[in-house]
Amino acid sequence: MAERLSQGTFRDRTGVRVIDCDVHNNVPSIEVLYPYLSDYWRDYLIERGVTSLEPNFYPRGVPLSARPGSEPPSGGPPGSDLDVLRQQLLDPWEVQYAILNCIYGVHLVHNEYWAAAMARAVNDWQLAEWLEKEPRLRASIVVPTRNPQLAAEEIDRLGDHPGFVQVLLMVRSEMPLGRRHYWPIYEAAERHGLVVGIHAGGSPGNPITPVGWPSHYIEDYVSIAQAFQTQVVSLVSEGVFAKFPRLRVVLIEGGFTWLPSLMWRLDKNWKGLRREVPWVDRLPSEIIHEHVRLTIQPVDEPPNPEHLLQTIEQLGSDDILLFSTDYPHWHFDDAEGALPVTLAPDLEKKILVENARALYGF
Amino acid sequence: MAERLSQGTFRDRTGVRVIDCDVHNNVPSIEVLYPYLSDYWRDYLIERGVTSLEPNFYPRGVPLSARPGSEPPSGGPPGSDLDVLRQQLLDPWEVQYAILNCIYGVHLVHNEYWAAAMARAVNDWQLAEWLEKEPRLRASIVVPTRNPQLAAEEIDRLGDHPGFVQVLLMVRSEMPLGRRHYWPIYEAAERHGLVVGIHAGGSPGNPITPVGWPSHYIEDYVSIAQAFQTQVVSLVSEGVFAKFPRLRVVLIEGGFTWLPSLMWRLDKNWKGLRREVPWVDRLPSEIIHEHVRLTIQPVDEPPNPEHLLQTIEQLGSDDILLFSTDYPHWHFDDAEGALPVTLAPDLEKKILVENARALYGF
Repeated sequence: MAERLSQGTFRDRTGVRVIDCDVHNNVPSIEVLYPYLSDYWRDYLIERGVTSLEPNFYPRGVPLSARPGSEPPSGGPPGSDLDVLRQQLLDPWEVQYAILNCIYGVHLVHNEYWAAAMARAVNDWQLAEWLEKEPRLRASIVVPTRNPQLAAEEIDRLGDHPGFVQVLLMVRSEMPLGRRHYWPIYEAAERHGLVVGIHAGGSPGNPITPVGWPSHYIEDYVSIAQAFQTQVVSLVSEGVFAKFPRLRVVLIEGGFTWLPSLMWRLDKNWKGLRREVPWVDRLPSEIIHEHVRLTIQPVDEPPNPEHLLQTIEQLGSDDILLFSTDYPHWHFDDAEGALPVTLAPDLEKKILVENARALYGF
Repeated sequence: MAERLSQGTFRDRTGVRVIDCDVHNNVPSIEVLYPYLSDYWRDYLIERGVTSLEPNFYPRGVPLSARPGSEPPSGGPPGSDLDVLRQQLLDPWEVQYAILNCIYGVHLVHNEYWAAAMARAVNDWQLAEWLEKEPRLRASIVVPTRNPQLAAEEIDRLGDHPGFVQVLLMVRSEMPLGRRHYWPIYEAAERHGLVVGIHAGGSPGNPITPVGWPSHYIEDYVSIAQAFQTQVVSLVSEGVFAKFPRLRVVLIEGGFTWLPSLMWRLDKNWKGLRREVPWVDRLPSEIIHEHVRLTIQPVDEPPNPEHLLQTIEQLGSDDILLFSTDYPHWHFDDAEGALPVTLAPDLEKKILVENARALYGF
């Protein structure tokens, strides 16, 4: 087994402070959003008895759930307290920047106007309670994905604020994310120089596999990598990156070891079928290398670390992996496990900080 | 680029004659099935004006379609003439055995009784027109997949005939193939010592990606690898191989380079979630190594052959790949391209013949 890093040594070793590209801030209770909602929507929540949109991403007692101690003393869910975040992540890890991805269940709301109101409230809450209080934080704009026009309006409202660096979509979407339906989102993101982050999760009602509904959570969890595969193929095939050449997409919490095989399959078949997608005017893998990034946690780690090094090399680019902890999800005990394998120093530095810096323009 | 084999040298080199695990025989016209249908179903076809169930797998002019010259002089579709098969494949390649997978569109029929009648007719036609005329051929039993009880009856009817060595399912199924719904098929296959082959294709009506319908054929073609991924996860997670310990499954025409990443992801998450699937009592990768096989054509071939060798090694077993030509589909010009890379002689021999011999009991 390769030698691994010890906690606190990232800075000693690389001379840089890490950028964490996937940190989850969580709405402690729906009431904290009331000040950011209009009377109409506040009354709507109260009259309908909506007490939470928490999607239960951190069920208690599940081994892959939140890091121990991440529940704040105040009693909110993991990730809902800035001080705890500072104590558990920002300070000990000497984090330079952390990108907040608030996956509170705005994406679960099918009423487009209600979703837009909730997204707006969550974003204003992020601004007041996180970004303005902690200079190491940056955040993703939550949007009402089912209505791309309303999503674009929300992006336009906040997109020039330096605290927001990304637009957040969920990988389990209503239709493949390359579809023209979603282009207003990409157009707005590009207009404001924002990255589009696609995060694990989402539940629009579609069966979560290409052959219908499975039975078990393990099938759900494993198969989400396939949703990411579909989105990559869709974004490339529909010509999103031809239409929006400055757009960058980050795939968050979906693994990366599946990407080499997918690029081989896509490149090969593009050679035979490219006439139907003339906007794909070069190898899909080249487009992916230019436009797509992936966070590293959780790693689909093979038993043999050599195989992981092979897979990283097969990605064909040192520029596409981004360091992430997925806090308060926590897929490792300490910094030792944060990078799954010992990498060449240049590549390690790119993953820990330089790739994120280039992507987000820090 | 590694040195490749030349046509006709498989036998010289390995001392064995190759076993081709994916050859498609095709129904030349629906009328040839009339002698194998009851009056009731023959009248039904005629009265409804059903002139073909050909699923157009070999559209003319598509670069990845059938091998040139595979259309018989008689005018039927590629794969519909035994003499042409002998001339193009069995003789020049010195094939020891070829497994026929007839993908005529029985799986497209939603009426379960009609599908059962068509499956029966196709199987009797295979028996009379292919198996009894050519000793190098073996065939898969076509079944009405939507009704597993009727499928099991068809398997029981033919399962002890030495010409039939496999039951054929399509990877795009109505629900994940591990579901208990399908267990009568596996029970019958195991009872008769038959392999279950899962082939690319199928169209039960489900969206073909986990996020709905894509727009282009390239998305369809690339994403079918994800359907195979889902089926592997489903078969393992639902406990099919615990219930039917002698069952073997072959994944046909779905590639294999995605399997290492999937096994890593599945193994890792099984460690955290195995309490919900207690019948999965060891690493999923061990179960896959024992029960799952994959045909090699078409290969999702990387530009760097070294990466393909790495991937084959990452499979973690020399026993799971099976040689196939996918005739009259044809993903290579000649035997030079039939194996995508130069392999160690022992592994090559396993892929060309020994793995298939062990699987099918030749």
